Amino acid sequence: MATLEGIAIEQRLVDHHCHGVLMRDLDRAEFESLLNEADRPSPLGTSLFDSMLGLAVRRWCPPLLDLEPHTDADVYLTRRQDLGVEEITRRFLGATNTECFLVDAGLAPESISSPVDLAELAGGEAHEIVRLERLAEDLLNDGVEPRAVPDRLTATLENTTAVGAKSIAAYRTGLDLPAAKPARDDVDAALFDSQPGASGHRLVSPVLSGWLAWTAIEAGLPLQFHVGYGDSDADLRYGDPLRLTPFLRATEERGVPVLLLHNYPFHRHAGYLAQVFEHVFMDVGLATHNTGALSAAVIRESLELVPFGKMLYSSDAFGLPELYYLAAVLFRRGLAAALQSLVSADDATDDDADRISALVLNGNARRVYRLGPEDAA
Amino acid sequence: MATLEGIAIEQRLVDHHCHGVLMRDLDRAEFESLLNEADRPSPLGTSLFDSMLGLAVRRWCPPLLDLEPHTDADVYLTRRQDLGVEEITRRFLGATNTECFLVDAGLAPESISSPVDLAELAGGEAHEIVRLERLAEDLLNDGVEPRAVPDRLTATLENTTAVGAKSIAAYRTGLDLPAAKPARDDVDAALFDSQPGASGHRLVSPVLSGWLAWTAIEAGLPLQFHVGYGDSDADLRYGDPLRLTPFLRATEERGVPVLLLHNYPFHRHAGYLAQVFEHVFMDVGLATHNTGALSAAVIRESLELVPFGKMLYSSDAFGLPELYYLAAVLFRRGLAAALQSLVSADDATDDDADRISALVLNGNARRVYRLGPEDAA
Amino acid sequence: MATLEGIAIEQRLVDHHCHGVLMRDLDRAEFESLLNEADRPSPLGTSLFDSMLGLAVRRWCPPLLDLEPHTDADVYLTRRQDLGVEEITRRFLGATNTECFLVDAGLAPESISSPVDLAELAGGEAHEIVRLERLAEDLLNDGVEPRAVPDRLTATLENTTAVGAKSIAAYRTGLDLPAAKPARDDVDAALFDSQPGASGHRLVSPVLSGWLAWTAIEAGLPLQFHVGYGDSDADLRYGDPLRLTPFLRATEERGVPVLLLHNYPFHRHAGYLAQVFEHVFMDVGLATHNTGALSAAVIRESLELVPFGKMLYSSDAFGLPELYYLAAVLFRRGLAAALQSLVSADDATDDDADRISALVLNGNARRVYRLGPEDAA
Repeated sequence: MATLEGIAIEQRLVDHHCHGVLMRDLDRAEFESLLNEADRPSPLGTSLFDSMLGLAVRRWCPPLLDLEPHTDADVYLTRRQDLGVEEITRRFLGATNTECFLVDAGLAPESISSPVDLAELAGGEAHEIVRLERLAEDLLNDGVEPRAVPDRLTATLENTTAVGAKSIAAYRTGLDLPAAKPARDDVDAALFDSQPGASGHRLVSPVLSGWLAWTAIEAGLPLQFHVGYGDSDADLRYGDPLRLTPFLRATEERGVPVLLLHNYPFHRHAGYLAQVFEHVFMDVGLATHNTGALSAAVIRESLELVPFGKMLYSSDAFGLPELYYLAAVLFRRGLAAALQSLVSADDATDDDADRISALVLNGNARRVYRLGPEDAA
Repeated sequence: MATLEGIAIEQRLVDHHCHGVLMRDLDRAEFESLLNEADRPSPLGTSLFDSMLGLAVRRWCPPLLDLEPHTDADVYLTRRQDLGVEEITRRFLGATNTECFLVDAGLAPESISSPVDLAELAGGEAHEIVRLERLAEDLLNDGVEPRAVPDRLTATLENTTAVGAKSIAAYRTGLDLPAAKPARDDVDAALFDSQPGASGHRLVSPVLSGWLAWTAIEAGLPLQFHVGYGDSDADLRYGDPLRLTPFLRATEERGVPVLLLHNYPFHRHAGYLAQVFEHVFMDVGLATHNTGALSAAVIRESLELVPFGKMLYSSDAFGLPELYYLAAVLFRRGLAAALQSLVSADDATDDDADRISALVLNGNARRVYRLGPEDAA
Repeated sequence: MATLEGIAIEQRLVDHHCHGVLMRDLDRAEFESLLNEADRPSPLGTSLFDSMLGLAVRRWCPPLLDLEPHTDADVYLTRRQDLGVEEITRRFLGATNTECFLVDAGLAPESISSPVDLAELAGGEAHEIVRLERLAEDLLNDGVEPRAVPDRLTATLENTTAVGAKSIAAYRTGLDLPAAKPARDDVDAALFDSQPGASGHRLVSPVLSGWLAWTAIEAGLPLQFHVGYGDSDADLRYGDPLRLTPFLRATEERGVPVLLLHNYPFHRHAGYLAQVFEHVFMDVGLATHNTGALSAAVIRESLELVPFGKMLYSSDAFGLPELYYLAAVLFRRGLAAALQSLVSADDATDDDADRISALVLNGNARRVYRLGPEDAA
């Protein structure tokens, strides 16, 4: 069987959900603010380095910058700046051993790399995932007439080179999406009603998020949903994947994959949905690096019900190159620990563990997104 | 203390919730479709053998068919057909060492064994659990006047030889049942409104499910609720046992046991209810075999709050004889692992572990359903 | 590193949420009724000693009464009575090694000790936490005109010597508190509408619970919320901390700490809130002793997302002196086990473990409640 160290290194990854990396140097406050889903370190609650994620940064990242594991945060950050953002980015992304990134390029403030840049820095390939709500907002912000927007969106999704679409309904109105495609009149009315704010249009409408999700499905695009864990901008109560049940029941017969991202702390709910609905897949991205070494338990819980052909790897990394690396190291280790424990107890064979690893780390994403066969490693 | 192997063999079980076994041979597609709660294997997601349940089938079942553990699925299925359904059923059911099955006979398509057949095949006894919604539907389908149905149902429940009743409200309208018995007028109206579909009447009414549950309680019948995990026909959001809180608060003084079945992923919620309400009991049936070797964690979590006098064993097996066996093996092992870990850490004594095992695997069900003392093993 | 035994003894505790201890002798029925959150032992479900809490009582408490671990419950209770309530209380409270108790004195039937008495028995100091709903009810019960109540409450909270306030909204109307301070007219109307029951006024009003919480925040008082696990009087569905999201979002900029108590089985939800909101803190009190040795898993799960500067210790003990002791022993052991496991796997250093222990067991509470520096131990 692939040993824990083996899974940690050998199997090339498909990271089916990540964002761009930040291509500029950072001071400690900026670094901490990008570390997890808090907006900034709390003056009431001490440093964000004192967290499972902080411990993981200090355990795993210093050696890639030629320092000892568990190096003090300030020493680490100084060394990081000395090497410069391009060098450390190449080191961290390269060490993930990722052969393919699927990049949500819709979250891209200044200095964020494009998918192409990311792939080049990492030594892999990249494909784009189109962010649905952003696509509609861009059209409105570009001055397209509201009544022309739906046809433009449909055409874009039908002709896109993106390998999938992503809905951020959970950040806008929650996951109670409709069990049928909203009527065109209702969509027109919702678009007409949208008023731009200081930073342009921001669509907060279950009709629009629902229509976009249905349109992506009709275009045959694998459809990702932000589910569960994220920043304080989302109300986690409305991010429980069970809220998608009517939508999933209504879309199952289409045969278009639906991918539930993150899911924590509802990862058992996601595993259930992945078992009972043919077209549902899941990952535990974002939660993996945020829970550090304790992610092993989260990964093990996810495996309880999910068919192994329906579990995927993602980092959901954004900004800090460390996060791509930590997600990869921690997910490989957590998966390997779960599988080795099964093998040790004679609950699975070495061959089972190898096959399951290959599916989860690479093969499932290749099949679902039709990425073609795995490259020679 | 009863060792892990000891609990795995010696203590005879009461399986307080199961269904009939399928008495005909099966091809691979049929076998997979009966394996878990998915309707069928997903063309998108590979074989259902690649799951914790599939690993458990391959680990535990082949030896009973004279094959090596971890045998390939196709070899296993061929051997299964060669031996024939009656022979394998005797082997698997006999190996559960179950002395008493409480059978929900209300889910019985063709070729499903009756409780009597099941008991005979297993070398144990069987009692019936009456499925409430089905009882009402049968009366309507038999042409009984809607206004005559309530009295007929009441009389049936008061005079039944069944040892308990089961509500599938979770599959019909969810667990938000009323805190008082619905008025007769409302029940009459709901029955009058029911229109038969292609396969007869199907009651989807909180009034009727509520009235049936209250009527069972009034008849003094231990009342089971489907809770949590099941197939995609139920919306899991409405299957959280906490939704039963008003009903439980209102029925507590009656002293009639209420039994929460399955519960996963809400098993901690069920443990809480079993602690704070005198008449509430729970199990983790169905989830035990579906989560395979990882069920040990589910069982351990269940034990956090539940008084040990209120945890029961059930398989919730249906159709495949393998499922009765896997549920028994995995629950015995999971319970034994949890107890042995407590004993090893000096958090409990051998005597504690033996007493708790005997309660959970047998004694609690005997007391709750008034089944009389345990047979000599 | 502080060894498991070391953490179990050396680090002095701040118990940031507990109640008074019962200063009279008890028979077995009374003892069991105070043991956990059930109203009384269930005749259907055997003794409450058969639970994780009961095992923990028998494992940890007899040695403090000069008996062997795992002593039979009746022998233990006899010895307890022989020694007398004052002697056993001194022994158990002293053995917690708590230097500071923050006491909710609002739950105080006859024979319950005051914070001052508690501190004296334990050899530590004590501060009061004011129970918001109780404060308002006391004014009404004392005959204060409803329209005078709000100003009296505001003045009381602005001038209190209490170090914090506690909301029991979860027990009254649930945690869906308003995102803005309710208008004075609505508060007046709610107070005017309140009618006293047999035991006086009992406020069940989201307007009043919301107004009280907002008033405490405006007074700068650290604000505790009962969340999750409690007795059957609360409906656990309405005690999910995620329901507080709008309130937390609206109060974050005030910089006043909000402390989520208990949280089980929603402790992962609480950890998320503590990460993404600057002013949110959490504990797993009450659940720790109720889940006995299995609390180690609950504590480990809590650590997944919570910044270590935002996790606190509380016992939530009430009545039985054993509960203060068990909470302390079990939380120390659970935290130590989690940290030692990280150190053993090289996921943290000894220094990390020591620093985290000191924060969680003492320093975080001192900082949040402005209690001054830790005493010399």
